[in-house]
Amino acid sequence: MELTGRSWLGGTRAATSGRSFRAVNPATGEALAPDFHSASGADVERACRAAHDASGAFGLSAPATRASFLRAIAERLEGARDAIVARAMEESGLPRNRLHSELGRTTGQLQLFADVAAEGSWVDARIDTAQPDRKPMPRPDVRSMRRPLGPVAVFGASNFPLAFSVAGGDTASALAAGNPVVVKAHPAHPATSEIAAGAIAEAAEACGLPAGVFALLFDDGFAVGEALVRHPLIRAVGFTGSRAGGEALARLAASRPQPIPVFAEMGSVNPVLVLPGALRERSDALAEGLHASFTMGTGQFCTNPGFVLVPAGPDGDAFAQRLAERTRATPGGTMLTPRIASAYAAGQERLRRLDAQLLAEGAEAESAAAGRAALWQVDAAAAVVKSALAEEVFGPSTLLVRYGSDRELERLLDAIEGQLTATVLAAPGELAQHAAVLRLLEGKAGRVVFDQFPTGVEVCPAMVHGGPVPATSDGRTTSVGTRAIERFTRLAAFQNAPASVLPPELQDANPYGVSRLVNGRPSSDPIGSG
Amino acid sequence: MELTGRSWLGGTRAATSGRSFRAVNPATGEALAPDFHSASGADVERACRAAHDASGAFGLSAPATRASFLRAIAERLEGARDAIVARAMEESGLPRNRLHSELGRTTGQLQLFADVAAEGSWVDARIDTAQPDRKPMPRPDVRSMRRPLGPVAVFGASNFPLAFSVAGGDTASALAAGNPVVVKAHPAHPATSEIAAGAIAEAAEACGLPAGVFALLFDDGFAVGEALVRHPLIRAVGFTGSRAGGEALARLAASRPQPIPVFAEMGSVNPVLVLPGALRERSDALAEGLHASFTMGTGQFCTNPGFVLVPAGPDGDAFAQRLAERTRATPGGTMLTPRIASAYAAGQERLRRLDAQLLAEGAEAESAAAGRAALWQVDAAAAVVKSALAEEVFGPSTLLVRYGSDRELERLLDAIEGQLTATVLAAPGELAQHAAVLRLLEGKAGRVVFDQFPTGVEVCPAMVHGGPVPATSDGRTTSVGTRAIERFTRLAAFQNAPASVLPPELQDANPYGVSRLVNGRPSSDPIGSG
Repeated sequence: MELTGRSWLGGTRAATSGRSFRAVNPATGEALAPDFHSASGADVERACRAAHDASGAFGLSAPATRASFLRAIAERLEGARDAIVARAMEESGLPRNRLHSELGRTTGQLQLFADVAAEGSWVDARIDTAQPDRKPMPRPDVRSMRRPLGPVAVFGASNFPLAFSVAGGDTASALAAGNPVVVKAHPAHPATSEIAAGAIAEAAEACGLPAGVFALLFDDGFAVGEALVRHPLIRAVGFTGSRAGGEALARLAASRPQPIPVFAEMGSVNPVLVLPGALRERSDALAEGLHASFTMGTGQFCTNPGFVLVPAGPDGDAFAQRLAERTRATPGGTMLTPRIASAYAAGQERLRRLDAQLLAEGAEAESAAAGRAALWQVDAAAAVVKSALAEEVFGPSTLLVRYGSDRELERLLDAIEGQLTATVLAAPGELAQHAAVLRLLEGKAGRVVFDQFPTGVEVCPAMVHGGPVPATSDGRTTSVGTRAIERFTRLAAFQNAPASVLPPELQDANPYGVSRLVNGRPSSDPIGSG
Repeated sequence: MELTGRSWLGGTRAATSGRSFRAVNPATGEALAPDFHSASGADVERACRAAHDASGAFGLSAPATRASFLRAIAERLEGARDAIVARAMEESGLPRNRLHSELGRTTGQLQLFADVAAEGSWVDARIDTAQPDRKPMPRPDVRSMRRPLGPVAVFGASNFPLAFSVAGGDTASALAAGNPVVVKAHPAHPATSEIAAGAIAEAAEACGLPAGVFALLFDDGFAVGEALVRHPLIRAVGFTGSRAGGEALARLAASRPQPIPVFAEMGSVNPVLVLPGALRERSDALAEGLHASFTMGTGQFCTNPGFVLVPAGPDGDAFAQRLAERTRATPGGTMLTPRIASAYAAGQERLRRLDAQLLAEGAEAESAAAGRAALWQVDAAAAVVKSALAEEVFGPSTLLVRYGSDRELERLLDAIEGQLTATVLAAPGELAQHAAVLRLLEGKAGRVVFDQFPTGVEVCPAMVHGGPVPATSDGRTTSVGTRAIERFTRLAAFQNAPASVLPPELQDANPYGVSRLVNGRPSSDPIGSG
């Protein structure tokens, strides 16, 4: 596919008149051709208008149509695999194997949402039939289901240029539910974004869908993203990125004349609680696992464990020692962008200013965006007082917090903010002795992990990749797993409606055969005439 | 039950030191004994702390326990029926029959949520079992479900002193899901509130639940409500009332260091679209139905039809004429409070200033809070220009908007804000000729009613009493119907967790026998060892 550097506006392409920018290879610092052109206000308007115009037909499209669309996107991404991986490597600095597996995850997500859309029960169709003779008042016929919201703005994330970007999870779940999508491309990987956009646009055309179901807007500043979130035709926002970015979008959306939901996944420090028995039993294995988890992918995961509660005393000292050895042996890595590398360096400086003790550093990398592993340590007493120690440092760094008692743990965990994950490493039977601590942890995190590590988010029906504010802007939902199809929807009821105006899922005949709640009981059967 | 006028703080009672106020009988203007005492900041703190302390045990209580609790509340309310109805009549001016049926609705809601809690499938339990041999990576065991949020602040509504107040829908759904509730009593019906609080507190004690699961705070100002929404231990807010009030609470909640969800139901004008064929076929019956709907209960329903689109021309004129006759014959009513009566008068004045034509008025009432029925009319062209014509007037008033064409309808409906309901009155087969208009209406409302009237909200599994902003602050949810149990929850996942720490709904044995999604398939069976 030929790269044009122009935004995709739902059927048409933007002019090249806007300010231009280039991606930068974070390993070499080299600017990569071609030029990409920032979208104009008129481009945003055109993309949103096309999305709005497409939303009626797309929102009413058959589940099978949406499933075919998602599968067609996956096929085309698969077809462009080598080009995508090659470009993503240049633009993100991520290694080839990682990107191959991330592409597999991306197409897997699309196929999973295709299955969910085709199966159809996610709409939560409910039918309460009329009882005209009920006393004292007749009961009306009431039917309801989840319906798409309309155009959704999705912000590509820097750290997953495929799985959380143009054709990533938010796009897949929004399309699966019947919402057109307008993506704001992350400026760190514009070419990767354009290739993915091409796959989506081609798939839409092949499936006979209006071109407005998808648009891609380029910008290396904030103007396009802001205009998108403010645009009256945009009905919801999906975002994965920094806390500052997510909170800014949430504020912007809340200040609209008609506020819209923002689903921002903003990361967290993902506390890991190491219990004494676990250390006595398998300290080395845990050090190995934790080290792998916090340095994996140069530490650039939202679920990176950055705050590790380790017992004071000799067992904890030995564990810290073992982690320090592994940290010193860690090769230097390339971060996603020079800016992220600078922010990482600033985060290290912040830990230093907060009087954390640097236990070990890894090797330096020869890179324009070098990220060097680091292991820090503080006392629990310090962490209770200095809440900034529990702020995320995005990169291959972690902080050991040495605790003396469960009471100290409780004070620490009581003060900690909402988290995507919390992890507990325990010996068999040990959890029962720490019930209060465990309950505190559970209340703070979207996912609690036992004797495994938080990095790696399985894409499956039960997954919750979310968590209380400020890990996300809305702890009632998830950005990974099949439940994500529910986030870009609203409830709509029809009372005493003729069959002709009902969505198929609510018609007596149940033509899609979805599971429904009929007069309070689950059923996939048609409602009989008898 | 003896009335004390003191707030209930989850086990203890507030002092009588606070500023005192009395309810006012809106029919007579008479102040009603006893004095009620506004809660202090310390009272708010104590109520929230008790709720927080109760939330762990209550959140983990068995479904059967929560169901018994809700049924025990319903029994006690039923036991106090005569006292409640007598007090609510004095405090609200609502007629006896209406309050008897509202109490039935209130106990019915509690029983319905008891059934939902006991059945248990609402938690959406999902289990994906481990696949240790999967390549290239093992699949972890992941389990998740909806969990209660913690203490919920509920604001009693003035217009349903029973069904949307202390023991109303928000309280029932929050308790059913396992959340302690702190109610801010509406100052218009404090004695009714205290009797209902007594029923809840007694039921909690009888069921062996911690007293902190429920508290009731009195205040005739805004300080207690604000302190409650700002309190760090409060996790969500339920509100039914004015747009100004709901938006203020939503802003307050969004400005917290950790924002919390606000489910505010703020009312709307509930547009009614009268199509030409319907008028040709049964103009008189429609006029009768519409008149009954907009004047019922002195027009004090969130679903009151206040914006009626009627064709220009002779059929529409005759319809308006018939409505005017009925309006003139409408007896005067007593509104809920003198303040609401003043606001209604101001709303009438606003319609006058917007150059709406007053077609008819009903009789005046002899009352300290009189509400007189009114029928207004404007041209569609005026309504397109003056959006304030589509703002709610709370009371027995409606506005006929005379339209000439579908294009005019589309412009009107395109400009209209989110609505709780939209109603279409059509002749058989007529809907098909107005598909675009119909689609616009559907996009604007939580519930679309066909050939019935919007007042009267059936409490059933399929009901949606919600709608896009600004009808509510969150169109993804409902305040009536069984789905309301989901609003005060979040998603929580457990990865690789030992059975001992899993909630029963996620344990292999499935002790409550709830329907779950196991490896993507619905099942109520235990997960076998085989």
